[in-house]
Amino acid sequence: MPNSPSGDSSTDRLIRVLESFTSTRTAQTAAEIGRRAGLPASSAHRIVGELVATGLLERDDDRRVRIGMRLWELATRSSRALRLRQAALGPMERVQRRVREHTQLAILEQDEALFVEQLSDPDSGSNATRVAGRLPLHASSSGLVLLAFGDRALQERVLAGPLSALTGETLVDQAALRRKLAEVRALGHALAPGFVDADATGLAVPVRDETGAVAAALSVVLRRGMPVEPALAELRVGKLELERALGFRGRA
Amino acid sequence: MPNSPSGDSSTDRLIRVLESFTSTRTAQTAAEIGRRAGLPASSAHRIVGELVATGLLERDDDRRVRIGMRLWELATRSSRALRLRQAALGPMERVQRRVREHTQLAILEQDEALFVEQLSDPDSGSNATRVAGRLPLHASSSGLVLLAFGDRALQERVLAGPLSALTGETLVDQAALRRKLAEVRALGHALAPGFVDADATGLAVPVRDETGAVAAALSVVLRRGMPVEPALAELRVGKLELERALGFRGRA
Repeated sequence: MPNSPSGDSSTDRLIRVLESFTSTRTAQTAAEIGRRAGLPASSAHRIVGELVATGLLERDDDRRVRIGMRLWELATRSSRALRLRQAALGPMERVQRRVREHTQLAILEQDEALFVEQLSDPDSGSNATRVAGRLPLHASSSGLVLLAFGDRALQERVLAGPLSALTGETLVDQAALRRKLAEVRALGHALAPGFVDADATGLAVPVRDETGAVAAALSVVLRRGMPVEPALAELRVGKLELERALGFRGRA
Repeated sequence: MPNSPSGDSSTDRLIRVLESFTSTRTAQTAAEIGRRAGLPASSAHRIVGELVATGLLERDDDRRVRIGMRLWELATRSSRALRLRQAALGPMERVQRRVREHTQLAILEQDEALFVEQLSDPDSGSNATRVAGRLPLHASSSGLVLLAFGDRALQERVLAGPLSALTGETLVDQAALRRKLAEVRALGHALAPGFVDADATGLAVPVRDETGAVAAALSVVLRRGMPVEPALAELRVGKLELERALGFRGRA
């Protein structure tokens, strides 16, 4: 697409507009979008106008705009996320009904854990994650699974840091993280007590697809101090069901 | 954004690229995208390259590209669809467990019913719809609910036709459709036997949000000949739960 005088393509400008929306900032004026996307006010108004005309953004009752249902539809109907979460929903429901705590599915995306599905109960404990939200690989049970079973280049990139601490218990030491990844591979699950939230323990298992590669992490967020073994047993049942649905044959 | 010599904006070209992907056509080469989006091959290659660089599209192992997880994430994390389906998931699960047939949630989008969530059972009957799929308003139980409780201008646009037939039983006569909409408003539910699929009966109820407006249709797809009353009772329970979650106070 044609470039602006500053040299960025209109695709760059579009993604900066889309990135200015977050899970807590769902409606903005064109001027606010321009400021956050680093666009001149006139460009921001023109781009927002074009995106509203095509339905990728929607205009609110006042002068604010939101992500349009048309964009959600186009992004969802042919995405990998949809296939994976449709296969996962049944197994996840059974895990959630038995464990009665947040049950989640994450994939590796741009060196982070991206959560593509989450089932919760009104009585579930606190939880930092949400659908389409992310967590660092070294700092969550799902991330540790994706990292431990990921390729060597990914592991070296993450181990090289920086390793940010979400709580006082997040593993931020390179040698300790290396030992943790070996433990995850040996045990076939990752336990992350207090890594994300001092009151919660993440517990995740790897899910393999038809190629035998780890395609996702299935996890539950337990309250600190809850017994781990019953939840792990349920996760293992759910993982096998999901692997069967994804076409995985045989055991790692 | 700057316009091409043909006068369409780069936003137009972008949406044509995204629209070339469907639920059954999830991977394409740049040349195929160009043909379907009506773009010269050189433009198609450049735009696809830019979209891959930003992660909005992803390159496959061969030369094909798919919708990127980054686009799904940006479109989902701040969308209305996410808020609605998160509120609906619990009530929908209970309906699905009791009725044991496809349970769906649809909203009005561009004069069609857009399905934002669907729960199914391995044993559920046949079903034409899927998540992020659409059906015509006059030809599905969800669409009939959204149309019957929609505004007058919408009803007149749809009634003016053309009214396409999906089966021999789809209502395509204007006067008959008008009577059907009055019946849906009077009964508070829509029954669509054989409208979409000769072997299935759609059954939908309206869901009101905190403004009192009908924000969605909650539906089940019954096998033809199954009793309707028990499913309707479950839908009504689910609808009340969902309306409470959405902040609707009082009864219509």
